[in-house]
Amino acid sequence: VNFVESIARKRDGLPLEPEEIKAFVQGATSGTLKDEQLAAMLMAICIRGMSPAERQVLVEGMRDSGARWRIGEAFPEAVDKHSTGGVGDSVSLVFAPLVRACGVPVVMMAGAGLGHTQGTLDKLAAIPEFRTAGSREVALARLERCGVCFSAQSAEIAPADKKLYMLRDITGTVPSLPLITASIMSKKLAVGAARLVLDIKQGSGAFCKTAQAAQELGEALYTVAERAGASVKAMITDMEEPLGDRLGTANEVLASIEILRGGGDARLREVTIELGVDALVTAGRTPEAARAELESRLADGSALSQWELIVRAHGGDPDDARLARPRRTVTIVAATGGCLSAVSSEELGWVAVNLGAGRRFQGDGIDFAAGLRIHARIGNRIEPGQPIATLELGAREVDLDELKRRTQAAFSVGEAAPPVRPLVNRWLAARR
Amino acid sequence: VNFVESIARKRDGLPLEPEEIKAFVQGATSGTLKDEQLAAMLMAICIRGMSPAERQVLVEGMRDSGARWRIGEAFPEAVDKHSTGGVGDSVSLVFAPLVRACGVPVVMMAGAGLGHTQGTLDKLAAIPEFRTAGSREVALARLERCGVCFSAQSAEIAPADKKLYMLRDITGTVPSLPLITASIMSKKLAVGAARLVLDIKQGSGAFCKTAQAAQELGEALYTVAERAGASVKAMITDMEEPLGDRLGTANEVLASIEILRGGGDARLREVTIELGVDALVTAGRTPEAARAELESRLADGSALSQWELIVRAHGGDPDDARLARPRRTVTIVAATGGCLSAVSSEELGWVAVNLGAGRRFQGDGIDFAAGLRIHARIGNRIEPGQPIATLELGAREVDLDELKRRTQAAFSVGEAAPPVRPLVNRWLAARR
Repeated sequence: VNFVESIARKRDGLPLEPEEIKAFVQGATSGTLKDEQLAAMLMAICIRGMSPAERQVLVEGMRDSGARWRIGEAFPEAVDKHSTGGVGDSVSLVFAPLVRACGVPVVMMAGAGLGHTQGTLDKLAAIPEFRTAGSREVALARLERCGVCFSAQSAEIAPADKKLYMLRDITGTVPSLPLITASIMSKKLAVGAARLVLDIKQGSGAFCKTAQAAQELGEALYTVAERAGASVKAMITDMEEPLGDRLGTANEVLASIEILRGGGDARLREVTIELGVDALVTAGRTPEAARAELESRLADGSALSQWELIVRAHGGDPDDARLARPRRTVTIVAATGGCLSAVSSEELGWVAVNLGAGRRFQGDGIDFAAGLRIHARIGNRIEPGQPIATLELGAREVDLDELKRRTQAAFSVGEAAPPVRPLVNRWLAARR
Repeated sequence: VNFVESIARKRDGLPLEPEEIKAFVQGATSGTLKDEQLAAMLMAICIRGMSPAERQVLVEGMRDSGARWRIGEAFPEAVDKHSTGGVGDSVSLVFAPLVRACGVPVVMMAGAGLGHTQGTLDKLAAIPEFRTAGSREVALARLERCGVCFSAQSAEIAPADKKLYMLRDITGTVPSLPLITASIMSKKLAVGAARLVLDIKQGSGAFCKTAQAAQELGEALYTVAERAGASVKAMITDMEEPLGDRLGTANEVLASIEILRGGGDARLREVTIELGVDALVTAGRTPEAARAELESRLADGSALSQWELIVRAHGGDPDDARLARPRRTVTIVAATGGCLSAVSSEELGWVAVNLGAGRRFQGDGIDFAAGLRIHARIGNRIEPGQPIATLELGAREVDLDELKRRTQAAFSVGEAAPPVRPLVNRWLAARR
């Protein structure tokens, strides 16, 4: 295969042969193709797209570029949950102990925060002494011990994705359906849980701004995983405003513990339960039985006990008194009254990042104490001067006036109530 | 300017602002933009194209990326001739002395062979001791001394083009109208002759295979040069078969001397004269007077004397007895009889390259003795066993059987005569 000819074919909108796609992935992994050649191919794919057949070869090639953990062979019941990324979304930290409390093992590969979203890996790092698994052996041992494994993406999993993602980030080739699908699914399939639950975020705070975009991404992820032999469920959930009412790292661990204690944010709780229903349905329950079981595990405290067991199995201390707390807080109030018509989750995510809950630059440290609390939801009636958010400051030096201004501007107050949005959209189940 | 955002704009088909294009060129020249970012932008331009306004900014930015020789300021009458590249095309070596013999100075920047075409720079190198000019000072001194300057592209002229061309070559981004236009014109405009004569090749042996492609490229080159302030003429000439009957380096020098002596290949002679007419028209002659003057300069030997003067002014020896000659020759005969319906100039160009007249790999040496002679033209009646070409072998080890087979296969013999093609198409003059 002459790779320049392969680039030219994709440039001209022609489909690539399987061996051309494999050569692309192998060249990215081994370094035998130059970065400028990979970038040109990425741009051509970004503009010309890929057929489902090409996409499948790309995903499986990237999956095979490194180690395959084949978790499903050792734990056939284990389920993996993936979200396409949102703000105030600490579902993973509730889902794992809750689903495990219903008898289903959970394996999850957590990533660091990306852009305006806070990453599960950074939230887990806020738990004192918590250590994610970095190898198949440790992952299997954790599953054996507590039925749950949180792992960090290691160098051995899908190295082609690591290389290509780094290139996409600086070459304007991030927003591509086949490339996003391949990046997500290559890692999931390399971990190799036999069951997969997908949460496609849609709205102002998500990568997919529209229902159509979310459905396309959901269909692509679903199709790829199913063709690769996994049992998959997928739903679209709302990201027009932050999911939970706490943003940050330690702050989102607290948000999860609130749910596990039977309280917490209603939207965060509901999305977690819906995803849990999907997980239990892949394990053979009916949706009704699954929901009842999940509700009772939250009510009877067994999900919380499971959480403590999981944290200890990962070397961590589940005592929430040891989580970092803000040094001081600043309340943001509404400037005008009316009905809350929109919230820019993306902007609030960036405020949290700037406060210290994320990385503004590569190599930035995380300030676990920093975060944001949200006191108003879209559709709420707002009085002038009413608190709408609280900035929680850590040790990082910030331009507080700027962040106050941006936070206030992220809430739009209008005259009329906006139309009600569904929190969960099971479009795929409805269609099939 | 955030360059990743600029890439994303072009990716999405949006026009780039002038400062974005300038940042692209400056980043390519200075090395502050990464090769993978340049490659992604090149691919986006390749697929999405550029408006005439964007293209103009790109060309002028690339022109300004290095030294500007401003030849037109010192020699306002000097004309530059450019061809988009063909096989058996030694027009430059006849054009320069012939036009100069009519009193018009000529400046030409010669390039090395590219792909299947033999480069003027390589042909000039076949003349013993010939040295091209590499700086403005030497170029002006040559023009002063003999009215003609052949220069080689130096590192100081349009360094952005050198960088981008190298990237395009390995990233599948060569075939792009704005990028090709910018590559050609940035160098022409940096040399800065006030008058420009363009020869757009069209046919099987050229980059432009169709009349439409040739017209688009011709219009782009013409428009860019005119907007940059040059006086321009452009024609499309036939490249369905090699222009002259000799291919190679020393061989094409001989083909030129044959014309200058009043004989030589009729097609090569005619295209040279037509381009000469354009050159003299930019200097104020009528087309009729220009043609008569050019014909008489060939007939009276003054063009030949001028050639010898030019060669000496460039340090070379005009004695054609000193040109490299083939060690042995192999005649290729027609396998079947009929009418010669097509000749693959591109394939014959590659045969010449493989014999030694070009570089198969970067760093390959040129064998000045190697070449090819062509004995049949499209439309000729062919008898079985009739000689159609002669391979001229130098010192390079070659797979002779393979080259004989390829040469024979490059000539297609059919039943009926193909339609007659015009040698020269002045489409632009006809349209305006």
